[in-house]
Amino acid sequence: MRIVFLVLFLVLEGVVFASNAGAQHTLNLMPMPAQMQPATGQLVIDPSFSVAIAGYKDARLQGGVDRFLADLRRQTGMVPLDLRLSDAATAKFVIEAERNSKEIPELGEDESYSLEITPSGAKLNAPNTLGILHGLQTFLQLVQNTPAGFVVPALVIHDQPRFPWRGLMIDVGRHFIPLDILKRNLDGMAAVKLNVLHWHLSENQGFRIESKKFPKLQEMGSDGLYYTQEEVRELIAYAGERGIRVIPEFDMPGHSTAWFVGYPELASGKGPYPIERRWGVFDPAMDPTQEHTYKFLDEFIGEMAKLFPDRYFHIGGDEVNGKEWDANPRIQEFMHSHGLKNNDELQAYFNQHVQAIVSKHGKIMMGWDEILKPDLPKEVVVQSWRGAASLAQAAREGHGAVLSSGYYLDLMQPASQHYAVDPMAGEVASLSPEQQRHILGGEACMWAEFVSPENIDSRIWPRAAAIAERLWSPQTVNDVDSMYRRMVLTGDWLSGLGLSHDSGYEPMLQRIAGSEDAAGVRTLADVVEPVKQYARSDQAVTEPTSLMPLNRLVDAARPESLTARHFSALVDGLLSGQTRPGVEPELRAFLVRWRDNDAGLQAAGEQSFLIPEILPLSQDLSALGAAGLEALDFLDRGEPAPENWKSAQLARIEEAEKPKAQLLLMIASPVRKLVEASAKTITK
Amino acid sequence: MRIVFLVLFLVLEGVVFASNAGAQHTLNLMPMPAQMQPATGQLVIDPSFSVAIAGYKDARLQGGVDRFLADLRRQTGMVPLDLRLSDAATAKFVIEAERNSKEIPELGEDESYSLEITPSGAKLNAPNTLGILHGLQTFLQLVQNTPAGFVVPALVIHDQPRFPWRGLMIDVGRHFIPLDILKRNLDGMAAVKLNVLHWHLSENQGFRIESKKFPKLQEMGSDGLYYTQEEVRELIAYAGERGIRVIPEFDMPGHSTAWFVGYPELASGKGPYPIERRWGVFDPAMDPTQEHTYKFLDEFIGEMAKLFPDRYFHIGGDEVNGKEWDANPRIQEFMHSHGLKNNDELQAYFNQHVQAIVSKHGKIMMGWDEILKPDLPKEVVVQSWRGAASLAQAAREGHGAVLSSGYYLDLMQPASQHYAVDPMAGEVASLSPEQQRHILGGEACMWAEFVSPENIDSRIWPRAAAIAERLWSPQTVNDVDSMYRRMVLTGDWLSGLGLSHDSGYEPMLQRIAGSEDAAGVRTLADVVEPVKQYARSDQAVTEPTSLMPLNRLVDAARPESLTARHFSALVDGLLSGQTRPGVEPELRAFLVRWRDNDAGLQAAGEQSFLIPEILPLSQDLSALGAAGLEALDFLDRGEPAPENWKSAQLARIEEAEKPKAQLLLMIASPVRKLVEASAKTITK
Repeated sequence: MRIVFLVLFLVLEGVVFASNAGAQHTLNLMPMPAQMQPATGQLVIDPSFSVAIAGYKDARLQGGVDRFLADLRRQTGMVPLDLRLSDAATAKFVIEAERNSKEIPELGEDESYSLEITPSGAKLNAPNTLGILHGLQTFLQLVQNTPAGFVVPALVIHDQPRFPWRGLMIDVGRHFIPLDILKRNLDGMAAVKLNVLHWHLSENQGFRIESKKFPKLQEMGSDGLYYTQEEVRELIAYAGERGIRVIPEFDMPGHSTAWFVGYPELASGKGPYPIERRWGVFDPAMDPTQEHTYKFLDEFIGEMAKLFPDRYFHIGGDEVNGKEWDANPRIQEFMHSHGLKNNDELQAYFNQHVQAIVSKHGKIMMGWDEILKPDLPKEVVVQSWRGAASLAQAAREGHGAVLSSGYYLDLMQPASQHYAVDPMAGEVASLSPEQQRHILGGEACMWAEFVSPENIDSRIWPRAAAIAERLWSPQTVNDVDSMYRRMVLTGDWLSGLGLSHDSGYEPMLQRIAGSEDAAGVRTLADVVEPVKQYARSDQAVTEPTSLMPLNRLVDAARPESLTARHFSALVDGLLSGQTRPGVEPELRAFLVRWRDNDAGLQAAGEQSFLIPEILPLSQDLSALGAAGLEALDFLDRGEPAPENWKSAQLARIEEAEKPKAQLLLMIASPVRKLVEASAKTITK
Repeated sequence: MRIVFLVLFLVLEGVVFASNAGAQHTLNLMPMPAQMQPATGQLVIDPSFSVAIAGYKDARLQGGVDRFLADLRRQTGMVPLDLRLSDAATAKFVIEAERNSKEIPELGEDESYSLEITPSGAKLNAPNTLGILHGLQTFLQLVQNTPAGFVVPALVIHDQPRFPWRGLMIDVGRHFIPLDILKRNLDGMAAVKLNVLHWHLSENQGFRIESKKFPKLQEMGSDGLYYTQEEVRELIAYAGERGIRVIPEFDMPGHSTAWFVGYPELASGKGPYPIERRWGVFDPAMDPTQEHTYKFLDEFIGEMAKLFPDRYFHIGGDEVNGKEWDANPRIQEFMHSHGLKNNDELQAYFNQHVQAIVSKHGKIMMGWDEILKPDLPKEVVVQSWRGAASLAQAAREGHGAVLSSGYYLDLMQPASQHYAVDPMAGEVASLSPEQQRHILGGEACMWAEFVSPENIDSRIWPRAAAIAERLWSPQTVNDVDSMYRRMVLTGDWLSGLGLSHDSGYEPMLQRIAGSEDAAGVRTLADVVEPVKQYARSDQAVTEPTSLMPLNRLVDAARPESLTARHFSALVDGLLSGQTRPGVEPELRAFLVRWRDNDAGLQAAGEQSFLIPEILPLSQDLSALGAAGLEALDFLDRGEPAPENWKSAQLARIEEAEKPKAQLLLMIASPVRKLVEASAKTITK
């Protein structure tokens, strides 16, 4: 109890360690370990550093240690020769697993580890290799540059995940994502201890995997953009080496137009079916009334069940609008004769058949929360996306339950919003402990209407790291400022692993600018965010399709503007009277740059066809900069701003708060605060 | 003749095209084509753009077109579906090769191509696929963002290389460079039309390739860091797909300590031999007097000759100090009995034997210019590194000759210096045309004493692009400012291909800073360059070895500071009286930043052990900033600065010009100019 208390205290305090030389470092651990106790001193990592594997050793452990050494080399700039394997008696860092983990990672395996660091050496112990992989990531995050050289601070960590299911879903159906990009995202997942890749492989817009039994699926349904089975095996192996499970999803009976291009007989309508290019929910759905549908699915699922070793198999099951069923007299007749009262019951009938097939092939079925119906077998896992209520309901009814509502990365929400979503909160909190045990964890979801190979990393990272912490760390780890501080550093670390969320930004801005000098575009881009939720589709002037280039500012802009967040915090500090020296100059520097940025962008607009749509935003930014500066002048003079000035500014700010080019100007709100404060009587 | 004249004019003028909308774009072609004629209008690249292969088509051509489409997608943000292959009748871009090129690229193949772009379409024609690959790179460099969308300007290009041998040598012996980094450098080479990778595979510090016949070479001589034969084949194929030849170098009889770790019987001394960790020229050398040496080389070269398909085979031959030969009585006796008067003759004897072996295995020998001896068979190619005189001598004596003197990237020279080195200049210019025909081209050389996987790209790129232009473009293409302008843009393009010369900079600076905020380090890093030539080794306090981390500012700093170059140009402009508005404010902004940068770095020095050595430089930078500002004040007032002020400043500048932490402050010289000018009587 004493240790736990200490840990929580440290977590809340941002975990500041004093190094020998007196300098202070905040530990950049993400996710935060379950238990951590600081000790005195530090272990220096110099060219004499060496590593030994003392316990159980298999290819996964050896690979993990090799990657650890490569990462440590990159982190320190030390050359490969210096970080060699050694024997346990002399090594500075001794790694010991009690036994191997399962050959294929499984749900519920022990992922715990202990890491003890003293000035003379470090020990990493775990029941199996999964814990070792996690502990190695923790060790890497502890490495710091100090006056004494590269060090890791002395401490003791006992760590294990809060939830066994910590996933990332990637939709490769709407936009195809090449294998190497998935691999680097697996590297990122491993770094933040996520352990499930949920691979959404089929959609109306594309069928993305090779079937040898039904080759027209990929040949006619993918525009040539699909993974061969060899590549699938390669990715599963790559994930497995990192302790990550891979769960395939084949969405049915809806979201399945791409299947019908090659096999229209599966559908409930007449066909022929072209690949869908629009986004949304469409009518085509599999025909649940025909025996040949199940025969096809039996063969197909059998083929895929062999390819994917994980026990779980996701069948989608979401968003069936039922129109093809309504329109088909034969299906209506079938429903009538089988006592199926509505489309929900027809889909439940379909699900029962599919579940039997999945089960026959040795797998446990999983689906989106639409599948949650009274007769659903208990072993089926439900993924909640339409709201957390279904999570509680599923757990109450004895289903394994995975939360994704609140974790949709495509909705462009700030990390803090995802971070605040807890699988055990709300209705779940009042379930019995027995029922709560069915809450397996959660999954961040990367739906891909507006995601390309170029910007997918920036949509996933670093925000997914906040979700990863929510799913791994104790529920009490919830200091938002600490999370952001660590998320930014984690973002840098992920860049080092090859993820392009940062490195891809400037090239996209240069393309928009039509010039190597993208400074003007960047100043604007840094303070905008894409519109939230489903507004991008809902408010589009031209209906977006999968054929449209994703090269606009809305595609390059980050989901969350940390510049705007920082500016907003400065404004709040200033207005609350807790001013530090330098705050007002920093605010003014921002505002001046924003006020003066428009001229350059107007000129760039004569060079590039991608500029004109953002010029109104640029003018808004300019107006906000000017308004903020004038407000600061009033505040400095200590006299309230005139009412007519205030109302003119607020009208302008209101205009600036309207989305333009599907972007939001995130500094409008803090500038509004400045203007409002400047018109009040000031007490200094 | 008319076309050529026009082209030269355009080149000198920086090649400015007027687009339909009146905006002007400078073409970013590097290397510049041999002949180019602008036309009216432009071809728009929009989602309807399509490509057809009309002529000869093989796997290399298809691969080149696939990469072209991927690059074009990346450049435009258009999604894959939109850029599809089509038939020649309807395609916007028709590609036609008359015939295939050789299965393995060969020296002297026709690399020419013609590219004709009109507003309605583009045609790329070439005698074979090599020219098509080059033409596709040219097309990509022509793509611009304009008010009309993405376009390529209408023009006609007839292009071919000036020299058939345009190489990049990479030393993987001193520091091992992983295969994926070599691959991305091959991508970079293809982008600037380099066509030879010279792979320096063995050194005192490492033997980097698997030999199945003599496995102790890699097992004992590489620290485990070597390429398997499978990987070698993979790299050769990767290069071949890009039209790039791969020439292996096995340096002998010197630079070969790593061979002797496993096979001491090859050496002229007693052994045992450990892997060498220091840099320099060492005593160990193969024993040229023993039959078993040649038997070993016969088997080894036979094995490697099968692995490497290129006709040329490099045997090194440089820097033998002869000390082991002098010290071995048996070798001395052999020399006496064979009438070999000195070590040069002994090495010539060795080379003759090796040449016979290389020739027996179907290859043409190549070596560094030390091998140039009277009896050297004419077919042997000589690579000049000790000076251009050997280039002329080799050509005069009928050898193929490749220039590397002046193209050593490790010497940290500015691109302009490499650019000014012409294989046909100097003594070569006075050779007969027949003799000049033996000048094959040149090779940039990346020796790797201070090169790691992390910084190698920044040592090669973008400077190698300037050498590539020297070797491809007409001799008359030599406008240095135009070269720099295009080199910077080419650098961005190369970053897009995955090269890390830019993306790796900030992470290295953050490591030095020990913080995510590396702004203070960056301000300093942006204006320093590593010491030139061999000063880093010569002036080192501690003798550098291969075990030392390469994580200091000298390892991160760019070989050429473009910030300093820009500042220097501004100063020259100001002092020559050709002032533009904004020049002085820009100068002052630089100087203020430099003057005020030191405080932050001093604080960072308390966080990071990598900072203290650069603090004296930081103080110099601060002093230079202050001196420059004061000088501008005097210039503004129009009165000469006092002599005592001037001499105090010049003394301080002299101190700032001294290398520190093996770095040079590149703004010392322009600040000196400001100070000197400010003390003169001004005529305004």
